[in-house]
Amino acid sequence: MSKKIKKIGVMTSGGDAPGMNAAIRAVVRACSYYNVECVGIYRGYQGMIEGDFEPMSSRSVSNIINRGGTILKSARSNDFRTVEGRAKAYKNLIAANIDAIVLIGGDGTFTGGMVFNEEYKFPCIGIPGTIDNDIFGTNYTIGYDTALNTVVDVIDKIRDTASSHNRLFFVEVMGRDAGFIALNAGVGAGAEEILIPEEDLGLERLLESLKRSKRSGKSSSIVVVSEGDKIGKNVFELANYVEENMPKYDVRVSVLGHMQRGGSPSCYDRVLASRLGVKAVELLLDGQTNLMVGIINNKIETTVLEKAIKEHHSINKELLRVSDIMSI
Amino acid sequence: MSKKIKKIGVMTSGGDAPGMNAAIRAVVRACSYYNVECVGIYRGYQGMIEGDFEPMSSRSVSNIINRGGTILKSARSNDFRTVEGRAKAYKNLIAANIDAIVLIGGDGTFTGGMVFNEEYKFPCIGIPGTIDNDIFGTNYTIGYDTALNTVVDVIDKIRDTASSHNRLFFVEVMGRDAGFIALNAGVGAGAEEILIPEEDLGLERLLESLKRSKRSGKSSSIVVVSEGDKIGKNVFELANYVEENMPKYDVRVSVLGHMQRGGSPSCYDRVLASRLGVKAVELLLDGQTNLMVGIINNKIETTVLEKAIKEHHSINKELLRVSDIMSI
Amino acid sequence: MSKKIKKIGVMTSGGDAPGMNAAIRAVVRACSYYNVECVGIYRGYQGMIEGDFEPMSSRSVSNIINRGGTILKSARSNDFRTVEGRAKAYKNLIAANIDAIVLIGGDGTFTGGMVFNEEYKFPCIGIPGTIDNDIFGTNYTIGYDTALNTVVDVIDKIRDTASSHNRLFFVEVMGRDAGFIALNAGVGAGAEEILIPEEDLGLERLLESLKRSKRSGKSSSIVVVSEGDKIGKNVFELANYVEENMPKYDVRVSVLGHMQRGGSPSCYDRVLASRLGVKAVELLLDGQTNLMVGIINNKIETTVLEKAIKEHHSINKELLRVSDIMSI
Amino acid sequence: MSKKIKKIGVMTSGGDAPGMNAAIRAVVRACSYYNVECVGIYRGYQGMIEGDFEPMSSRSVSNIINRGGTILKSARSNDFRTVEGRAKAYKNLIAANIDAIVLIGGDGTFTGGMVFNEEYKFPCIGIPGTIDNDIFGTNYTIGYDTALNTVVDVIDKIRDTASSHNRLFFVEVMGRDAGFIALNAGVGAGAEEILIPEEDLGLERLLESLKRSKRSGKSSSIVVVSEGDKIGKNVFELANYVEENMPKYDVRVSVLGHMQRGGSPSCYDRVLASRLGVKAVELLLDGQTNLMVGIINNKIETTVLEKAIKEHHSINKELLRVSDIMSI
Repeated sequence: MSKKIKKIGVMTSGGDAPGMNAAIRAVVRACSYYNVECVGIYRGYQGMIEGDFEPMSSRSVSNIINRGGTILKSARSNDFRTVEGRAKAYKNLIAANIDAIVLIGGDGTFTGGMVFNEEYKFPCIGIPGTIDNDIFGTNYTIGYDTALNTVVDVIDKIRDTASSHNRLFFVEVMGRDAGFIALNAGVGAGAEEILIPEEDLGLERLLESLKRSKRSGKSSSIVVVSEGDKIGKNVFELANYVEENMPKYDVRVSVLGHMQRGGSPSCYDRVLASRLGVKAVELLLDGQTNLMVGIINNKIETTVLEKAIKEHHSINKELLRVSDIMSI
Repeated sequence: MSKKIKKIGVMTSGGDAPGMNAAIRAVVRACSYYNVECVGIYRGYQGMIEGDFEPMSSRSVSNIINRGGTILKSARSNDFRTVEGRAKAYKNLIAANIDAIVLIGGDGTFTGGMVFNEEYKFPCIGIPGTIDNDIFGTNYTIGYDTALNTVVDVIDKIRDTASSHNRLFFVEVMGRDAGFIALNAGVGAGAEEILIPEEDLGLERLLESLKRSKRSGKSSSIVVVSEGDKIGKNVFELANYVEENMPKYDVRVSVLGHMQRGGSPSCYDRVLASRLGVKAVELLLDGQTNLMVGIINNKIETTVLEKAIKEHHSINKELLRVSDIMSI
Repeated sequence: MSKKIKKIGVMTSGGDAPGMNAAIRAVVRACSYYNVECVGIYRGYQGMIEGDFEPMSSRSVSNIINRGGTILKSARSNDFRTVEGRAKAYKNLIAANIDAIVLIGGDGTFTGGMVFNEEYKFPCIGIPGTIDNDIFGTNYTIGYDTALNTVVDVIDKIRDTASSHNRLFFVEVMGRDAGFIALNAGVGAGAEEILIPEEDLGLERLLESLKRSKRSGKSSSIVVVSEGDKIGKNVFELANYVEENMPKYDVRVSVLGHMQRGGSPSCYDRVLASRLGVKAVELLLDGQTNLMVGIINNKIETTVLEKAIKEHHSINKELLRVSDIMSI
Repeated sequence: MSKKIKKIGVMTSGGDAPGMNAAIRAVVRACSYYNVECVGIYRGYQGMIEGDFEPMSSRSVSNIINRGGTILKSARSNDFRTVEGRAKAYKNLIAANIDAIVLIGGDGTFTGGMVFNEEYKFPCIGIPGTIDNDIFGTNYTIGYDTALNTVVDVIDKIRDTASSHNRLFFVEVMGRDAGFIALNAGVGAGAEEILIPEEDLGLERLLESLKRSKRSGKSSSIVVVSEGDKIGKNVFELANYVEENMPKYDVRVSVLGHMQRGGSPSCYDRVLASRLGVKAVELLLDGQTNLMVGIINNKIETTVLEKAIKEHHSINKELLRVSDIMSI
């Protein structure tokens, strides 16, 4: 029988995402609601190893639901990949009377939790917080919706100048392995072409499509390119190739970069984070472990951590088709 | 066998919502993609009666995906409630060789379409566009996500001044019959209490809760009130009642009003509108009619118009509970 | 000869304004730069009377430059209007070894400071922080520029729905005694009419103008009304009057209210607050007192507090004329 | 005596800037107010050469005050640098009965206008529209204030992720020859260091300053770098240099790029554009030519075009000092 949970630790790890603070707040307040103590662990697994803990109360998470970033900070920890590192982390948790942990992050975060859980049978629940939306077991990860709005907002600005000058812009967005941001923000921003790792359009077809678009009377164009796209070596070479092959075309590149991780979270991300945070605490109190909470078909559901890491969403083919139709 | 569709009309009707332009754009471009003509009908059913039509091409919907409002304008038409009005509308559609229509709007819009379809067997497909999210057959209506972000953004601003002055604010948001905006934006904005038509908290319990919140150390509070809430006669009387019963509390009211209908649509609303617009055209071309397209569990699905109007979503009980836990 | 300043208190008082935090940060960091201690006084004069002080360092103002509201909170204090209240405040300042104070606020704040300075010869410098821009001795008060952007942003949203429905909106903005927000935001938002306390247009001329606007083909209109405008009893009665006298016109009212006080400050307000905060500290260290720092013709200048309170800007006649020309 | 002006042309040229549409609207409506015709010239001097003109009325500029970009499009024209090009342009203007032109743009635009005016005595008035604020004869150019807000907004987002991960970010902003954007947005965003072309800090002092900042307890830092800064070869090499010399520091680069040119203009830019647009028309009607209208000390003033181009603002030394003090 599992030990009664009296104190829960919460941490954020990996790339930060808007809504992580809302998730922390939800975990802290759910603990308060269920009369268990809550401890913030700073800088993810690294803080766990260094014993960088701080008790948290309902008041310590006041006025953070609207803030980007994470008040608990985040980090990637190489030490936690070692047996010694994890031993140290375990010792610190025990010393602080922490009975269970909520892990807010992505793939790497959950892998760490899984290994730790295996070695020490330490109860943990994962909450998917990453802008990339590349976690199985949830339709949305916390931060993804905000990142989409940020990207669309910036491309709207770029389109102002693109259409004033009849230019072609290549806009690189985040997504090393997954094209979710590119595809959705591309459709949302009315991009003429969207290049994602999951689909290799090929340089020839890209050129063909841009030329057709030009002929059809479009005077400016936006091509959204996912970081991980393999069509060119990188977005600058891609732009050069197009410029060389489409004389009279004024081509520019914009790499959006880290701004995509920041900003005040959207309502969706705040609500999602609140729901997942509550559920994570309730699962721990119910004796569950090694699960990720996610939202599937608008309901909060759980997935075994291992599955959440190993399986993958496929790209939405219908949306790819919509994108094609829209760029006519 | 249904007649081959060669020309499709598109209109917006009822209260406008962000994303309607994105839906118009999608309908127009899908028509272009499938080589059918497209005609914009201005001011909803009223424009149909007055023959206020304009041919639309792919280029006529350039650079509108990011704009609030509706380029086709909207109106409520009393004339369309009459047999004569509808006869006139039908005559105009026939005269303009329009074979089918896409209706973007809410309850009233669909009711009009259903009656029209019954009387004239005129093919029509509905797209749910309203900020209220009160349409059955879709998890999200176009404009709802944007309205939530607008409300949360404004309440963030109000909270700045509320917490600087230790004040209690009653913030009234849209939703005459449904508390969806209030509940979701309330959770998103970190409101201490959320008053919705679906749940009568009662004045006593509201007072009790606010007093408890005060005792627990909260120095400022936000109460989100849905337009249609029945707890007080209206938000001003509600505020007066609380002020009288909680001496030393500085109480203010803010009625958000029509700004909730405007603004550049969120990425979600733009993508949703694009998907629904394409599907609406495809359904018409496929000989379907009298259906609403919606998104259910992240898939585009159809619902018979009559059902979309008559049935209702119930409020998310889990989210109500999350709201309670968060306001601890 | 004036005593050497070793410790400076800083407080915010009166209505809060975006950029107050940026001003606090500037005062604290300037103290640090010049090696004097800095103490935050909470809730303005009330906190001074209650001895609600906290030492502040460079780090305690990290990451606040972008936040609305004021971390030192604000309040209006009736106690400070009494001789006893001010005696208590003085005693507390002396007990805490505070040698001088920086007062961030408006009219009322400076009046308090002036009286206090008279009675106790206590060095003080004022920084104009109010959204109303109604302080003499500065072209801009901190928060004004942000409030203008907030108002314009909201009216842009209202215009989306106004023009979709061919409606007339009366939008009430802040400004009890001064029409600066209404006039500037009105021009910025492209309002058809702007009603301010400084100019009584008269109901007849308003009607005339709206009718002319209608005839000229405008299908929707925005009228921006300053809180303090005397043309009607209030904005709702004004709207009623117009609706009764312009049949077929769909008239709505939107009262923007307290959201105008919140939000992340604009770049202008942050820079202005930084410059004024530094100057305030430098003046105190230079033995000056009883002055307000302001920006005049893009230079930081000082004005005797008494003058800053008693004199008034007049409204910009050229801008009124521009407004007339724009609404053609 | 100068010929009576009956028809005025208006165009935008050079890099586009937010508020150009507001300026176009003001010119068009002022023409309407003074009963002179107005013609839009597309794509700047290139459209003048190609005769790409369109008559404009009050209604054709409805609902554009809030839009980024320029509805008249912009371009850089090599043809206009030739005698033949200008002859063609002149012929077109005469053929269209255009008596005078309003030029909205920057340095290059005004140089073109000056040469044209010299050769053909064609009346022209310039309006400074560029985000760079590098025009003499005005404290603010149209678009500058908006660009500052855009930059500050993006850096706020970057700071969220910077402080979550304790990172150092180099953020490159526009300004090839002038550091106005970098300096003001840098202070507004709370940057630790600001590198501008006007001041060569030197690599050693930059390193020194960053190390001091680190020692003082700052866990993350933002360095704003103007495009034209000469301290490193470019921002990437600069970042590499710092990373090599500050081990354990996680350094990232973000190049903001063209998004800085777009977006809905701030209230300030809309009001400024409206005032300058009116004045430009009034000057032409008054028989003036070869002038630029600008805002100096909050008043609309004129400067001879030649002077506006040749002279330069110097950087605000007081603000540089404020920046130093703030980064303590």
